[in-house]
Amino acid sequence: MKLSFSGCYIRQKLSNMKALVYHGPGKKAWEDKAKPVLLQPTDAIVRITRTTICGTDLHILKGDVATVEPGRTLGHEGVGIVEEAGTAVSGFRKGDHVLISCITSCGRCAYCRKGMYSHCENGGWILGNTIDGTQAGYVRIPYADTSLYPIPSGVDEDALVMLSDIFPTGFECGVLNGQVNPGDTIAIVGAGPIGLASLLTAQFYSPAKIILIDPDPNRLEVATGFGATHVINNSNEDITATINNLTGGTGVDVAIEAVGIPATFEICQQIIAPGGRIANVGVHGKSAPLHLETLWSKNITITTGLVDTITTPLLLKTVQAEKLKPSRLITHRFALADILQAYDTFSNAAATKSLKVLLTNMD
Amino acid sequence: MKLSFSGCYIRQKLSNMKALVYHGPGKKAWEDKAKPVLLQPTDAIVRITRTTICGTDLHILKGDVATVEPGRTLGHEGVGIVEEAGTAVSGFRKGDHVLISCITSCGRCAYCRKGMYSHCENGGWILGNTIDGTQAGYVRIPYADTSLYPIPSGVDEDALVMLSDIFPTGFECGVLNGQVNPGDTIAIVGAGPIGLASLLTAQFYSPAKIILIDPDPNRLEVATGFGATHVINNSNEDITATINNLTGGTGVDVAIEAVGIPATFEICQQIIAPGGRIANVGVHGKSAPLHLETLWSKNITITTGLVDTITTPLLLKTVQAEKLKPSRLITHRFALADILQAYDTFSNAAATKSLKVLLTNMD
Amino acid sequence: MKLSFSGCYIRQKLSNMKALVYHGPGKKAWEDKAKPVLLQPTDAIVRITRTTICGTDLHILKGDVATVEPGRTLGHEGVGIVEEAGTAVSGFRKGDHVLISCITSCGRCAYCRKGMYSHCENGGWILGNTIDGTQAGYVRIPYADTSLYPIPSGVDEDALVMLSDIFPTGFECGVLNGQVNPGDTIAIVGAGPIGLASLLTAQFYSPAKIILIDPDPNRLEVATGFGATHVINNSNEDITATINNLTGGTGVDVAIEAVGIPATFEICQQIIAPGGRIANVGVHGKSAPLHLETLWSKNITITTGLVDTITTPLLLKTVQAEKLKPSRLITHRFALADILQAYDTFSNAAATKSLKVLLTNMD
Amino acid sequence: MKLSFSGCYIRQKLSNMKALVYHGPGKKAWEDKAKPVLLQPTDAIVRITRTTICGTDLHILKGDVATVEPGRTLGHEGVGIVEEAGTAVSGFRKGDHVLISCITSCGRCAYCRKGMYSHCENGGWILGNTIDGTQAGYVRIPYADTSLYPIPSGVDEDALVMLSDIFPTGFECGVLNGQVNPGDTIAIVGAGPIGLASLLTAQFYSPAKIILIDPDPNRLEVATGFGATHVINNSNEDITATINNLTGGTGVDVAIEAVGIPATFEICQQIIAPGGRIANVGVHGKSAPLHLETLWSKNITITTGLVDTITTPLLLKTVQAEKLKPSRLITHRFALADILQAYDTFSNAAATKSLKVLLTNMD
Repeated sequence: MKLSFSGCYIRQKLSNMKALVYHGPGKKAWEDKAKPVLLQPTDAIVRITRTTICGTDLHILKGDVATVEPGRTLGHEGVGIVEEAGTAVSGFRKGDHVLISCITSCGRCAYCRKGMYSHCENGGWILGNTIDGTQAGYVRIPYADTSLYPIPSGVDEDALVMLSDIFPTGFECGVLNGQVNPGDTIAIVGAGPIGLASLLTAQFYSPAKIILIDPDPNRLEVATGFGATHVINNSNEDITATINNLTGGTGVDVAIEAVGIPATFEICQQIIAPGGRIANVGVHGKSAPLHLETLWSKNITITTGLVDTITTPLLLKTVQAEKLKPSRLITHRFALADILQAYDTFSNAAATKSLKVLLTNMD
Repeated sequence: MKLSFSGCYIRQKLSNMKALVYHGPGKKAWEDKAKPVLLQPTDAIVRITRTTICGTDLHILKGDVATVEPGRTLGHEGVGIVEEAGTAVSGFRKGDHVLISCITSCGRCAYCRKGMYSHCENGGWILGNTIDGTQAGYVRIPYADTSLYPIPSGVDEDALVMLSDIFPTGFECGVLNGQVNPGDTIAIVGAGPIGLASLLTAQFYSPAKIILIDPDPNRLEVATGFGATHVINNSNEDITATINNLTGGTGVDVAIEAVGIPATFEICQQIIAPGGRIANVGVHGKSAPLHLETLWSKNITITTGLVDTITTPLLLKTVQAEKLKPSRLITHRFALADILQAYDTFSNAAATKSLKVLLTNMD
Repeated sequence: MKLSFSGCYIRQKLSNMKALVYHGPGKKAWEDKAKPVLLQPTDAIVRITRTTICGTDLHILKGDVATVEPGRTLGHEGVGIVEEAGTAVSGFRKGDHVLISCITSCGRCAYCRKGMYSHCENGGWILGNTIDGTQAGYVRIPYADTSLYPIPSGVDEDALVMLSDIFPTGFECGVLNGQVNPGDTIAIVGAGPIGLASLLTAQFYSPAKIILIDPDPNRLEVATGFGATHVINNSNEDITATINNLTGGTGVDVAIEAVGIPATFEICQQIIAPGGRIANVGVHGKSAPLHLETLWSKNITITTGLVDTITTPLLLKTVQAEKLKPSRLITHRFALADILQAYDTFSNAAATKSLKVLLTNMD
Repeated sequence: MKLSFSGCYIRQKLSNMKALVYHGPGKKAWEDKAKPVLLQPTDAIVRITRTTICGTDLHILKGDVATVEPGRTLGHEGVGIVEEAGTAVSGFRKGDHVLISCITSCGRCAYCRKGMYSHCENGGWILGNTIDGTQAGYVRIPYADTSLYPIPSGVDEDALVMLSDIFPTGFECGVLNGQVNPGDTIAIVGAGPIGLASLLTAQFYSPAKIILIDPDPNRLEVATGFGATHVINNSNEDITATINNLTGGTGVDVAIEAVGIPATFEICQQIIAPGGRIANVGVHGKSAPLHLETLWSKNITITTGLVDTITTPLLLKTVQAEKLKPSRLITHRFALADILQAYDTFSNAAATKSLKVLLTNMD
């Protein structure tokens, strides 16, 4: 009998894991959960080695994201090691170190064929949303061939966790949509992690002036260290006057909105030059006034966007070439088992001066 | 004494003309006015042979355009014949038949060098606004070399009056900003002259479906004749339901706003597909809500713009090649001397079924 | 015994088919061959209902294409009905009517993710080249989800055979690479099927002048019927003089090379305007001189390309909207079983005046 | 009489200057010449404070440039101070410090309106070619408003001489035409001043790898100091093997030809990846073979171009922002009066290790 009991124990050990589970608004727990299994031939199971927490996770915990049901494992960022791959997965095999994209892409629907993975008919942002996510020992990744990226050898895997979501988002929705050009003057409204990711990737294009606007002196100081040429504390400085000084009264070529409230979107409208681009990155909960009475004749472009993560291969190359050091955003490190403490730190960003927290799976 | 009287008479004849003059809100008169003279070496004086009336002229007459002062000759569209050219004008000489651009471009400021003539530091929309305009016997055109276009021989000059403003506007601000592609489904909200100009020029790019939305059955009928594949009367039809039927629930690739009020801008937001473009053409007097709470993740692009008239040479080629027949917008014809009657017709568009009125100088 | 014989007969009937097989330079046969079977979960087996012959097939038969080995079933164009789909195929099922792309795309390699399916690491042009093709009763299509396109109901399937290769090629490599714009003057060198496909799809963008250059009077006549505004017979006309007349001495905005020999590529260089684009579509067997001694300062762009078929969905929409009538290229029709006769007709194009031949499977 | 003599003397002093004059192949002299005068109201006379020598000047001196006639003052680069401005010049006045563009742009012809100043119908490259140039005490600049650029205060004017020609050329014809993107691998063939200008401006776009290819070890060393990540000495290294090593056998995304001979253009064709761009910057004297037999299916883009100098304002901003330090190309400095010695140094680049020489007017 001993043997069979032991067998049972081992099997249980193999098939269980720990996960950060959402239990309705305000409630989360780090608890035992069944390890995910392959459901489709295109799936892979990935053992999480590193993950992080996103501002969106905090929104979910407030109950703001209706698609997330109680019982869901949170998290849509991470790197890990392939544990098992479905029969139709050709690009990855057990043991491969992989970067998990926050966007699941089937690679075959009309949106994926256009490079608009964010709106994949079979995927999109589903991890930690409509299917279980990455804040766990293991995660099931659908369409693994087109939703995972191989990690080049020699790259710092801690840093790569930042490439699951925040850097593609800051780069695609902010910098590329904003069409930053050499010599441009750009403003980034919001110096949180996403604004800072825009700041770091905007420098790929050598703008002349990068102005960061935020009410938190600590974040502005970080921004300066990250390459901002000017900072404006909008709690006590006159944004328009300062921008006019810096631009000879013309306004900025590109304004990146990285907060997600009407007030910051209004700032973008006030400071944009004729012919300029406003790139919205923030997640908004309500509408904002669009001042068409002045903007109609100003020849501006406004873009919105959920990240497609189509630039992940490009970003990996810039990391390898040391043009981008994503680990600069990591301010705090925890063991994955201490994730509740990590949530406390991350959700008290002003006090803890946290940007991104790195969670490492010690198992 | 007879001789000197005669001399005086001749001089008076040469130096006077008739002009449609704004005398404050609600007041206009067709009256004698001094013929314009060269003020700068880059100026030209053009004898107007044909002109037309724009919706903007009606706005001015309501007192809505603060920059227009009483005493101003209205009008920013027209074709004519060069009467006199300044010493620094190299491209035109007396007798040349010319198309007058509604936008004056100095050709040398930073905006002009970028092709953004609408924001020319020395010009832009000034005709019939801050300087005297084209609804007169003669007009002074500053920066003639870069604000006039030679009329190719054999082209219908009646039709070309439509190239001063309305076709470049519909094309640049609507079709080009909206990035209409072959096979696209596009919607144009507003079937007035500007929406119809977008309709006609959108067909340069072979969209699959062109949906016109307007409450006026007459204009929708015109739109159908001009190539709309579908029309929606928004006074009694459910726009969203119809668009969903036509697009399999996805929405339109391009929505062109050609009215200028919040309600029509809202329609554009309701019907746009993920990844779509909203091109604003309308002149707005107040802000409109931008529904970032739904659009933030929809990867859309919104553009605004005063026309640059940078495509005038392109449009002239399409007219010569008979790919575009601008005269289709002309519904009524008057002698220039009957301009007050023309204003009546144009300002009662619903009753008169007028689109654009052509005014011909019979002198 | 009767039963088992009957069973054997049925099985044989199911597993055999007819195919046009290459047996080395100059040798081909319409012969019995085993029906293809699924090899990968991502494969589909398609019953061919219609196919056609490409100029490339003639090159293969001459022994010019080293990758094609004896025993290979030829053909890379066709429409058909899905007979069987692998377990990992999610977009198609038995009975679906499908358009077969001449380019096989895995959808997951770096090239496919960039939309450059022509260079797919697992596909590309392999049909009728390195794997058996479509001139047969059945064909195996690898990566079916990303290499087949569903046929919208109500579309003429005869016409769609033209969308497997020739229309995407003429459109992508000629028209899109050449950046045809409204009002442009374009020249197409070569009025064979591929040049005519460029001619028909160039009209999506409303160029002002389309000049076809070819030595065959019949093809020039066809070109005129298809929308060429000017034709030049280069066997007896002075191309440069005529183009100079048509363009005021400037040259053409776009030159599309649709033959594949140095002489025609030289013509493109002679007639291109400063700032113009030369789009190579032809398949070349040797190098051509590039006249950098004159072109270095002419600000031109030259493109080359194997088709990606990334525009297949766009082309399907233009066919549905009747902006494109691909069947205009079909000059001759045969039963698939008469394919040898069809090859005779197609390979004697000058005498038979053939453009594309349609082969219909009558089984 | 003394007075009138004195007056005559003064007048002579004012109206004469020194100039470097071409006297036919192999012959040049630093000699007295009449100071230029205004010929058109759009002209300006500029007192040269700094100029430099271009490789093109050496070509002229060899007799290679047929348009240059004996008696011509050479030079098309320089900065200076406006001495006199024509009546139609509105943007500059006496005393303004200006950067002289090597390209004269009228701002009004069709090419200028498209931003293709290189092909200006009234200008283009005429300085030191068809009209007298900048290697002199004074120069007449036609169309001054659109051919001069104001020098922002505080900018190092020595450095700005490099913005007349070499930096816009390397940037526009090499980097912009080559479409350098973040993460790209690019190769620059030729590490002379123009190749190095491409190297420095390519870094605006953060490519991952920049490979310089040249036979001169000194120039390769300079290239490494300027940011090349890899160098290949093509006199003793196997280019293709090295590139294959660096790119996993794929080839480079962008190849910039900065020499102007068939051999270097061939290198570009050998090393380009599928989908890559070859940007020709070199001035070629004869044709080069284009290997369409391999390139036809490789989806590449080749561009040629004389510089438009349309990016001069952008470059000025990057200089002000210290993203670009153009003075890094200056290896030798001379008084303008010592220009013959400067020519010796510049024309013996291998021995003198010269890149660009700065000539300062000490008068």
